[in-house]
Amino acid sequence: MAAATLARRIGRSGVLPLCCRLPAWDRAARPPPGPAQPPGLPLAPCRSFSNNKIQVELDESSGVAMMKFKSPPVNSLSLEFLTEFSISLEKLENNKACRGVIITSALPKIFSSGLDITEMCGKSIEHYTEFWRAVQEMWLRLYGSNMVTVAAVNGSSPAGGCLVALSCDYRIMAENPKFSIGLNEAQLGIVAPFWFKDTFVNVVGHRIAERSLQLGSLHPAPEALKLGLVDELVPEEKLMEKAAAVMAQWLALPDHARQLTKTMMRKAVLDRLVAHREEDIKNFISFVSKESIQKSLRMYMEMLKKRKS
Amino acid sequence: MAAATLARRIGRSGVLPLCCRLPAWDRAARPPPGPAQPPGLPLAPCRSFSNNKIQVELDESSGVAMMKFKSPPVNSLSLEFLTEFSISLEKLENNKACRGVIITSALPKIFSSGLDITEMCGKSIEHYTEFWRAVQEMWLRLYGSNMVTVAAVNGSSPAGGCLVALSCDYRIMAENPKFSIGLNEAQLGIVAPFWFKDTFVNVVGHRIAERSLQLGSLHPAPEALKLGLVDELVPEEKLMEKAAAVMAQWLALPDHARQLTKTMMRKAVLDRLVAHREEDIKNFISFVSKESIQKSLRMYMEMLKKRKS
Amino acid sequence: MAAATLARRIGRSGVLPLCCRLPAWDRAARPPPGPAQPPGLPLAPCRSFSNNKIQVELDESSGVAMMKFKSPPVNSLSLEFLTEFSISLEKLENNKACRGVIITSALPKIFSSGLDITEMCGKSIEHYTEFWRAVQEMWLRLYGSNMVTVAAVNGSSPAGGCLVALSCDYRIMAENPKFSIGLNEAQLGIVAPFWFKDTFVNVVGHRIAERSLQLGSLHPAPEALKLGLVDELVPEEKLMEKAAAVMAQWLALPDHARQLTKTMMRKAVLDRLVAHREEDIKNFISFVSKESIQKSLRMYMEMLKKRKS
Repeated sequence: MAAATLARRIGRSGVLPLCCRLPAWDRAARPPPGPAQPPGLPLAPCRSFSNNKIQVELDESSGVAMMKFKSPPVNSLSLEFLTEFSISLEKLENNKACRGVIITSALPKIFSSGLDITEMCGKSIEHYTEFWRAVQEMWLRLYGSNMVTVAAVNGSSPAGGCLVALSCDYRIMAENPKFSIGLNEAQLGIVAPFWFKDTFVNVVGHRIAERSLQLGSLHPAPEALKLGLVDELVPEEKLMEKAAAVMAQWLALPDHARQLTKTMMRKAVLDRLVAHREEDIKNFISFVSKESIQKSLRMYMEMLKKRKS
Repeated sequence: MAAATLARRIGRSGVLPLCCRLPAWDRAARPPPGPAQPPGLPLAPCRSFSNNKIQVELDESSGVAMMKFKSPPVNSLSLEFLTEFSISLEKLENNKACRGVIITSALPKIFSSGLDITEMCGKSIEHYTEFWRAVQEMWLRLYGSNMVTVAAVNGSSPAGGCLVALSCDYRIMAENPKFSIGLNEAQLGIVAPFWFKDTFVNVVGHRIAERSLQLGSLHPAPEALKLGLVDELVPEEKLMEKAAAVMAQWLALPDHARQLTKTMMRKAVLDRLVAHREEDIKNFISFVSKESIQKSLRMYMEMLKKRKS
Repeated sequence: MAAATLARRIGRSGVLPLCCRLPAWDRAARPPPGPAQPPGLPLAPCRSFSNNKIQVELDESSGVAMMKFKSPPVNSLSLEFLTEFSISLEKLENNKACRGVIITSALPKIFSSGLDITEMCGKSIEHYTEFWRAVQEMWLRLYGSNMVTVAAVNGSSPAGGCLVALSCDYRIMAENPKFSIGLNEAQLGIVAPFWFKDTFVNVVGHRIAERSLQLGSLHPAPEALKLGLVDELVPEEKLMEKAAAVMAQWLALPDHARQLTKTMMRKAVLDRLVAHREEDIKNFISFVSKESIQKSLRMYMEMLKKRKS
């Protein structure tokens, strides 16, 4: 049912069914109005579920969920992380008590470091396929979410981390010039997929996207604000307060009209990936399977390891 | 002939004939060079025609028409208003003496309040159809006009009023922070149609449009300037003077090249509505026929009535 | 054949070998690392070739070519100039020692005056066809170049001159308010082709392009910076130094990822011309063949002649 809802929402015009790989418990019919709770328990105003890598807390009185990335050291988007992320989003999406989600990091200085490079190195074709599908899935859910999504970017956010922020409705960043954000894939010798690019262009426009993507730029927070990559900077200690205020402003609107408007703005770009999903997976596999790419990813990982130790 | 011209101009690629509903006097062959005047009358340098709701005055020496909305209390876009608007535009479009039109309001504090909600409330399917077609017609004529169109926004301009301004070539607004402008449909629980959105995106870009439409924002004049929603602010008493100066600047260009350039810029968006016109009408009807929407429109009207009294 | 080859290169989703139509000396197997030089000569770090109208100097140690327009009085884009330009670009493109090109003018005060009007006046259909194909060819090569392209705009740059700058990856302009840049075709009563427009929109966005193209605006350097038409202004004497620094920054990125990213950003617009190339030529011919256009071009040339003398 969840999958059907999502498919209807995203892919109205002749589109593949999405998310067929979701766990059974999520596809099962649930009592429509409230959350699926064991009978007999009192309704708590706050409901949290935490898995390994992401902590989610839903305040049912406000309808706002807080989603905190807590996968040390750098919240990298591993297969496991992405799967948890998609499942968490779907759970919230299908919970009528939830209208908005604030996404932030539980770790200091980093929002998310982006795709986990170990998932792209020395693995099987099957693994690459599963991994890339999980990246797509996460983005389709987040960019196409009916909920209000606010990114509270409390640390650096390169590559896939930047994509997560770009996919939200609003981006607030801690005004620390040491924190940077950007789609810096080109720096690593790899190319951001077309739907990363589409999402970026929708936020900053064609010219800024063209330059930033070619240079693989990581923009310090003040520059990110100037380019429109984030909507607002606030002192780090006020970040969550501000995120809550912005969320309240967005939730003041009637859901239905806001959701249809959001779909209207994002549908073309979502449809494009849905229509080319398998092709996009093939492209990723053929790219990542190249010895030259494997070599440069290995070198990059060596460098990261050395830096750590 | 007029209709054919417009159809050719707007809908080059496989497109419905537009404007077939125009009054016979407008479709009739007219003496090509000058305006259709009874013989014997001297040619006046200034020629005005006024209907119920819009006053039009053409200065044939400058080639500039002044179009003033005068439908109290708030210049709402009723079926009657829209029909007059389209007819006035077509009359000017087909008058070779007219090269540009300045659109403004004859009422204080309001440019136009947008679509007339009474036309959407408790009426028949036939009425909704006729009304929506008139909204489309007005936009196709205005956004696709060969004339230079300057909006002198001398008051607030929500929703459909904002669309009128967005469809012009240039927008000058009175620098009164109490005047606001925006596509605030979402605030009323309704959704701006895709071609309102396309027009908006063409002016302010994707990101600003996405946020503003989802929040149903009404932007005070200074903010509207900052977002690029209007091109210029001037003190209210200088608005018409400035509009005339801007018009003169645009009319300094050779018409033919300017018109072809305008068509090149706007054709894709115009074509999109022309190609989906009947579908768009169906969407409107199915939306407006919903009991939930009728209810929220009734509540909104009640609120307006109370505010007035 | 050149057109077809180029079309294949640009308009594909997987990547074909480049530029198979190259002169034999360029296609010949060459010793991979260095340039093809007669044996016995010492390897020069700098290799230059100069034709009539464009001087090209390649510094093989840095991989950067300097291309200087030197076709007095105003570097107008004649058939001969365009042919030389395309051939020079192709030679560099196929020279593995070349990774970037800086384009500037060897003449004072003018970057390029744009298309040579004498090529459009009183000539045969065959000539118009050949000329327009050469304009297209130049743009397809420059906008689609795999090299980093930096425009060092050291003088005014109207119409086609502006297109050359817009087609580069980065634009630096001398901060002289007497120098202006813009697609001012409308001022001459002609219309910029759709791919000039597409290139412009990709740089400055839809709204600025719409207004600037309709008014045929020539923007003084400071205004051009504000509109995003150029990326940076520097004092004229620092222009080349700055261009070299920007080039070094862009060349710090791995070529392959940067090139694929550039293709991803520009492909849609390049493909559009490739798909409509013959139609675009026909449009040009039918336009330029009109007596009214011929007349206005002749008048314009008379005016230029008078101004000179």
